[in-house]
Amino acid sequence: MAAPVVVVQGASRGLGLEFCKQLLKWKTPAVVIATCRHPDACQELQALAARGPGTGTLSLLQLDVDREDDVRGAAERVAALFGGVDLMINCSAMLHPSGRGETSLRNVSAQGVMATVSTNTVGPLLMAKYFSPLLMKGGGAFGAQPPERSRQHRGLLVNMTARVGSIGDNALGGWYSYRLSKAALNMVTKTLSVELGRSSNNKVVCVSLHPGTVATDLSAPYHRGVPADRLFSPQHSVSLLLALIQTLSMEHTGGAYSWDGAPLPW
Amino acid sequence: MAAPVVVVQGASRGLGLEFCKQLLKWKTPAVVIATCRHPDACQELQALAARGPGTGTLSLLQLDVDREDDVRGAAERVAALFGGVDLMINCSAMLHPSGRGETSLRNVSAQGVMATVSTNTVGPLLMAKYFSPLLMKGGGAFGAQPPERSRQHRGLLVNMTARVGSIGDNALGGWYSYRLSKAALNMVTKTLSVELGRSSNNKVVCVSLHPGTVATDLSAPYHRGVPADRLFSPQHSVSLLLALIQTLSMEHTGGAYSWDGAPLPW
Repeated sequence: MAAPVVVVQGASRGLGLEFCKQLLKWKTPAVVIATCRHPDACQELQALAARGPGTGTLSLLQLDVDREDDVRGAAERVAALFGGVDLMINCSAMLHPSGRGETSLRNVSAQGVMATVSTNTVGPLLMAKYFSPLLMKGGGAFGAQPPERSRQHRGLLVNMTARVGSIGDNALGGWYSYRLSKAALNMVTKTLSVELGRSSNNKVVCVSLHPGTVATDLSAPYHRGVPADRLFSPQHSVSLLLALIQTLSMEHTGGAYSWDGAPLPW
Repeated sequence: MAAPVVVVQGASRGLGLEFCKQLLKWKTPAVVIATCRHPDACQELQALAARGPGTGTLSLLQLDVDREDDVRGAAERVAALFGGVDLMINCSAMLHPSGRGETSLRNVSAQGVMATVSTNTVGPLLMAKYFSPLLMKGGGAFGAQPPERSRQHRGLLVNMTARVGSIGDNALGGWYSYRLSKAALNMVTKTLSVELGRSSNNKVVCVSLHPGTVATDLSAPYHRGVPADRLFSPQHSVSLLLALIQTLSMEHTGGAYSWDGAPLPW
């Protein structure tokens, strides 16, 4: 079985960095392409890239998801180096440029919303625009495959969403920028699933996944309010998510799921 | 019964213009504040504003929803002139800056998505930011009111959504920018309903409404593909929508509804 080729977008920290770590030690250690804005400044990723034998390999690629030329250029390099991609995970996200979600309308600004949408929604959509041709050329080496060729996929596309991006689940209000950007991302996932599910032989499974409430920089201002048993470490969240991703097949495409596999309402 | 004060945002054409026309002839003819980017260039609105007695009154206000300063200034003028607002309808929308929805990922551009989100999502959110204090001071003169004071509302906030903005209803794909901007707008509506439903005495009903497929400039490139009996005139759509708006009460807040009152899935 060939090593799966995995693109982790937003790999410098948090969930993205942890995905890289665990994928390098995956049962079939992966060929990991880690993208971030400033690879030169990311010592943890550089240390992973320098690891010896016994793990998968890690390549660093510069990519600012707010710059369409960066995304196009990165996809061209991956195409030249690897030909296809089996799994792409879009991890970059911000709560708000200020680091704090809006508690009321008074905190809302056009600039804040637009910056959040650019990173959380448009970024993953641009990644899909340029990397979906590579996912359609993947070997389907990650995730579950049914025996019938017509139901098999060539690649998996995972957008990291959040439960607070569920419109139907929104009972608390606030966090306008983050909520609307993730609701829009869920629409991106659903729309992608239609476009990338049409081909008879080159289907891509597209899902949104909720990682739980994870102790990362994004959620740092809010850790005090979360009960300890509900605040996941990145290690725990990513191990649950990878176990879930492994089970994904075309039956799941177009859906949003929590870390435990439970469907999320839109 | 006092004349209801109604703000129609995006009133220069299409549904917005038709809302103004019908509200001026409403059973209690309304005080209509019509906003658009270039009031000087809009002869139809100027003709409505110049109408004689026997109808409501129409005031024109310059407002580009992409400019936060414009929205703030317009709200300050309405506050000074009228004190409160009973109904606000956000109508401005674009399919895409090119006038055509994306048929595939190839047509997606960051600029196209961002421009669409700015008008379709951020615009109505900014309107809510600056006008919700006025809606909370409205007289509740539009819409249904239950007898108990605690269940009554002071104003209605209507965001024009579209069925293609429903994630769950999306079976066809394409139109990335428009779909994601309207899904995000539905999240805005839901989040607003929480914030503006908290006060015991100053509640605002917030809903997203789908006008049907209406023969406007926005949909013009697609009229040929729509069966004649499913392509509404602006007159027909707006008369259905006003009849529906009239029935809205706090039980409906936070929801999305079609022109016939049927709930839309998120």
